[in-house]
Amino acid sequence: MKLFSSVNDVADLKSFIEQALNLKADPFAHQSLGKNKTLGLVFLNPSLRTRLSSQKAAMNLGMNVMVMNLDKEGWALETEDGVVMNGTSVEHIREAAAVMGQYCDILGFRFFPKLLSREEDYSEALFNKFVKYSGVPVISLESATLHPLQSFADLITIEEYKKVKKPKVVLTWAPHVKSLPQAVPNSFSEWMCRAQEEGMIDFVITHPEGLELADKFTPGAKIEYKQDMALKGADFVYVKNWSSYHDYGKTFQNGESWMMTHQKLEQSNEAKVMHCLPVRRDFELSAEVLDGPHSLVIHEAANRVWSAQTVLKNMLEGLL
Amino acid sequence: MKLFSSVNDVADLKSFIEQALNLKADPFAHQSLGKNKTLGLVFLNPSLRTRLSSQKAAMNLGMNVMVMNLDKEGWALETEDGVVMNGTSVEHIREAAAVMGQYCDILGFRFFPKLLSREEDYSEALFNKFVKYSGVPVISLESATLHPLQSFADLITIEEYKKVKKPKVVLTWAPHVKSLPQAVPNSFSEWMCRAQEEGMIDFVITHPEGLELADKFTPGAKIEYKQDMALKGADFVYVKNWSSYHDYGKTFQNGESWMMTHQKLEQSNEAKVMHCLPVRRDFELSAEVLDGPHSLVIHEAANRVWSAQTVLKNMLEGLL
Amino acid sequence: MKLFSSVNDVADLKSFIEQALNLKADPFAHQSLGKNKTLGLVFLNPSLRTRLSSQKAAMNLGMNVMVMNLDKEGWALETEDGVVMNGTSVEHIREAAAVMGQYCDILGFRFFPKLLSREEDYSEALFNKFVKYSGVPVISLESATLHPLQSFADLITIEEYKKVKKPKVVLTWAPHVKSLPQAVPNSFSEWMCRAQEEGMIDFVITHPEGLELADKFTPGAKIEYKQDMALKGADFVYVKNWSSYHDYGKTFQNGESWMMTHQKLEQSNEAKVMHCLPVRRDFELSAEVLDGPHSLVIHEAANRVWSAQTVLKNMLEGLL
Repeated sequence: MKLFSSVNDVADLKSFIEQALNLKADPFAHQSLGKNKTLGLVFLNPSLRTRLSSQKAAMNLGMNVMVMNLDKEGWALETEDGVVMNGTSVEHIREAAAVMGQYCDILGFRFFPKLLSREEDYSEALFNKFVKYSGVPVISLESATLHPLQSFADLITIEEYKKVKKPKVVLTWAPHVKSLPQAVPNSFSEWMCRAQEEGMIDFVITHPEGLELADKFTPGAKIEYKQDMALKGADFVYVKNWSSYHDYGKTFQNGESWMMTHQKLEQSNEAKVMHCLPVRRDFELSAEVLDGPHSLVIHEAANRVWSAQTVLKNMLEGLL
Repeated sequence: MKLFSSVNDVADLKSFIEQALNLKADPFAHQSLGKNKTLGLVFLNPSLRTRLSSQKAAMNLGMNVMVMNLDKEGWALETEDGVVMNGTSVEHIREAAAVMGQYCDILGFRFFPKLLSREEDYSEALFNKFVKYSGVPVISLESATLHPLQSFADLITIEEYKKVKKPKVVLTWAPHVKSLPQAVPNSFSEWMCRAQEEGMIDFVITHPEGLELADKFTPGAKIEYKQDMALKGADFVYVKNWSSYHDYGKTFQNGESWMMTHQKLEQSNEAKVMHCLPVRRDFELSAEVLDGPHSLVIHEAANRVWSAQTVLKNMLEGLL
Repeated sequence: MKLFSSVNDVADLKSFIEQALNLKADPFAHQSLGKNKTLGLVFLNPSLRTRLSSQKAAMNLGMNVMVMNLDKEGWALETEDGVVMNGTSVEHIREAAAVMGQYCDILGFRFFPKLLSREEDYSEALFNKFVKYSGVPVISLESATLHPLQSFADLITIEEYKKVKKPKVVLTWAPHVKSLPQAVPNSFSEWMCRAQEEGMIDFVITHPEGLELADKFTPGAKIEYKQDMALKGADFVYVKNWSSYHDYGKTFQNGESWMMTHQKLEQSNEAKVMHCLPVRRDFELSAEVLDGPHSLVIHEAANRVWSAQTVLKNMLEGLL
């Protein structure tokens, strides 16, 4: 494995899940694999779960880890080609990525979208340049449009907690106070559509009209504008805000009624509730749900270690 | 050991000191204990000594270490319960602590008091929530009211440098330019009162009238408002500023005459001089004292490794 | 080896290069040397290459590494002696350095010049104080006037890529948008003058009149004000901006014509082009050169690992 930026980088999804569960059962079984190998984690944006779970996963495999907060410990990167660098950008991503590739066997890279230009964000130009110039295997730690380590952890969690062979999984939009990227819902949808294709789940997305995600990430998903209809018989409810894809980056107004509550979940099949975190309590999701027995949010976060460790293990095997 | 937040978490003080001195004599004797165990150090405030000495202690024990500057690399935490999170706080401490507890076997946590509400600070609400929700053993890296790793290192230092069986230890207030927390003096007093109770030292606190520390941290301490009286025959003089507990958070004005100098120390029993650092030279403590043969400030800082390592060792043994 | 702050700290230059190439060929051969030894990297300024390559070098040798961004994770340091610390500086470098020396077996220290007072910067007062008070071997991670890890990596790179026994090496000034320190050109010149003295290269410096470097770093260098004359027959061209030493800290105006291009290199002996990075594309150096086959900039950066590892290895051997 040379790249982990999307579910499309995973050849065999079921085997990937199985590997993750095996690593969870025996975290330190492959420590010789990572000996004298270095993972570099490059952040241009804040991170809690991704930062710590990726470090932990690498250490479980015997790797060394170097963390680089490029925006704070380094300097502003130039990302455009053909620019005369006479402004405030100190270094071009071509050199920065190439140099980090010299010091690290595997790199992780996080960069959030600016939500100003859909074309720019959805081109994934910055992430792709980082991959191209670094010259080593790269893991997305969340890019402009996708967050595959999160989605893989979500799928592992569903596999662990499912009570029926083919559970109904519902992704529901939730209100928020800020304009958030579409990366988490795009990515969750992409992974669930693949799982649905492989007969593992049924997948429904519910959101206010106008908040449709990009088609390319929702192949085969059922779109349902009525939240209560979508929740009927749901086994897993994934709660997440996103800003508009079509009216790009805009926040949906007056969506407060979409907050997930115990009452709404009554129509479900005692659904487990998921969220990638961080979550706005009593705004996206009620505190009673978060603190109740149906919440899987901490389990999902814990499974981030195994999603990262599975990816790292496959990349390390590719280095042999 | 599941919690280290106060001297009250230490069952046998003398054994604890002995363990620390044994670790100092043979730092790498317990490296198998920490193998594949992870210490997470979570800072919401700056740190030099605590940051580095805790890392060093953990590495001495064979542990992995992850450092999280939550205020800089993460985001603002919500700490109140029952709040609709529609403001600037991105994540609730319930989830943040629980998630970090999933990635780490032991956590350290630093959060300074805001010095606005005595009730809030002295409730240690934030520290206690972190302990409660993290679900793993927690070490205070300095809380709103206490700094036990510092005080334990101070006690180790006194044990090493004492020239009489039962030395006289004096905590003296010193001037400063800012309002500082009471955490260090509270904690030093708490540890010294316990040591006095066990017959190890005699303990005196001296400060301007009105700057009394909270009673609960000074049981058995002799309070003496005249600094020169307090210093008579002192074997150890611990210099530290603190803001008012009673007129909460206020700086004491016109306290410049309380600066510790060589001249003042003449009345002592060739006292060794201590300070937790960082110290304001020639304002809290004269440069001549700091740079002279009676200063123990660097020794105290060095002993931070052994205080942290003793705590970590006991916690690791509790994980077996 | 107790100090690495200049080429003058290297007794045998050729042996040093040979050691570096041996480490590059067999990076993990000396892992027992660093076991239970700790390298502390202290940054008061941003860093990418130095930060990561030094960590990597230390880990290759089996060392533990602690990174301290003192300006961000700590607080403002007082550097003057005899000052009453009643201002914004929280800790004196005397204590800060001494404490870090207690936790680390070897320290690295980075501090850029302020470019306000030549006397102050060229005294290297801060770096020298750090060395004096830390009490352990210290590596310069770039000081006010020198950047020896970079220059050593540059010399290793020249040794690897030279096509003639005694190549002509040209340091050429380049335009920039900001006032930059003289540390990199001073240091490169110092190392090249030493290499020239040992018969390894011929060394020429070219820059606009008035931008002469300090004499003490250019002994034996040929100074040539006409860039095209200097480039004739060059085997290596080292491109770098610096601000004025004589009109201290001033930026040279109207120097745009000094940008290095393919056309200018035609007069050279198919010269390899070097730069310490970060580089301003199409301002210091044309993109065509940077992206072309003559650029060594990524190789130089990669060699930073071996320059650091050679220094660390020698220091570790000195600790035995």
